[in-house]
Amino acid sequence: MRTVPDFPEPGVLFRDLNPLFADAEAVRVVIDAMAAGLPEDVDVIAPVEARGFLLGGGLSIAMGVGMVPVRKPGKLPVVADRVDYSLEYGTASLELPAGVLRPGQRVAVVDDVLATGGTVAAVCELVERAGAEVAVVSVVLELPALGGRSLLGGRNVLALQSIT
Amino acid sequence: MRTVPDFPEPGVLFRDLNPLFADAEAVRVVIDAMAAGLPEDVDVIAPVEARGFLLGGGLSIAMGVGMVPVRKPGKLPVVADRVDYSLEYGTASLELPAGVLRPGQRVAVVDDVLATGGTVAAVCELVERAGAEVAVVSVVLELPALGGRSLLGGRNVLALQSIT
Repeated sequence: MRTVPDFPEPGVLFRDLNPLFADAEAVRVVIDAMAAGLPEDVDVIAPVEARGFLLGGGLSIAMGVGMVPVRKPGKLPVVADRVDYSLEYGTASLELPAGVLRPGQRVAVVDDVLATGGTVAAVCELVERAGAEVAVVSVVLELPALGGRSLLGGRNVLALQSIT
Repeated sequence: MRTVPDFPEPGVLFRDLNPLFADAEAVRVVIDAMAAGLPEDVDVIAPVEARGFLLGGGLSIAMGVGMVPVRKPGKLPVVADRVDYSLEYGTASLELPAGVLRPGQRVAVVDDVLATGGTVAAVCELVERAGAEVAVVSVVLELPALGGRSLLGGRNVLALQSIT
């Protein structure tokens, strides 16, 4: 991992996982650790566009579960639901594809970094409004100073590493 | 897979793989088939944002190789190179992260669909300008009527399925 100052805007320390992704052994260690932390009865992974897709794709194979990708606006041809939210630098929206997440399914929300929590909270809202259940939020990295967990209520959050 | 007419613009038949991604067995079958087609000496996967990330993440775990994600502009904190390319209307750009792809590496370019070929050709250009080699272009679906292979020169293209 490398830390890049002032990206995507001044004052933000960006945590860049690309060196990790490029290393086969590091990817395996991270995916194994995320898989080990997930409840055994998870039905489906909800990876968050776009870096969450790299992790979700690996978890899907490692755990033998399918994926419901949560996407940025304009990407999905058929949309079930949409949430608008604010994040560390600006505002954003996320959409859930129609016809793939089933009510009652137990979902692992997967992303790379938990920072202010806005993105992950929006995904949890989409999952729960669809009648499914957030079994766990799984991330590689948590930045506790940004207070992301406070936006996630009592939901189960697993982070492989915390950076203060 | 489902086909959605007039997305993202009128006249386009969009091939939506989200039902496939949601099905654990289908994901496994697709990733196994992509992995079986890749040369054994591939060093790294270059998945294309964003649906290519879902496949690349799985292939990384299935094959034990790392990933160099090729991204849309504004997403990478440190950029090695950028290619602008033409779409049917207007242009698009893709960027290669700095410091992760090494000269001489043999790369599998991974995306979901090969249509006009513009996106995949741009990725191949980024890979080769970095001094690496495109060992194979691996996609789930090819739409041969759109002529994508003609943009890819003699490069090795593997598609699991063709739809005319």
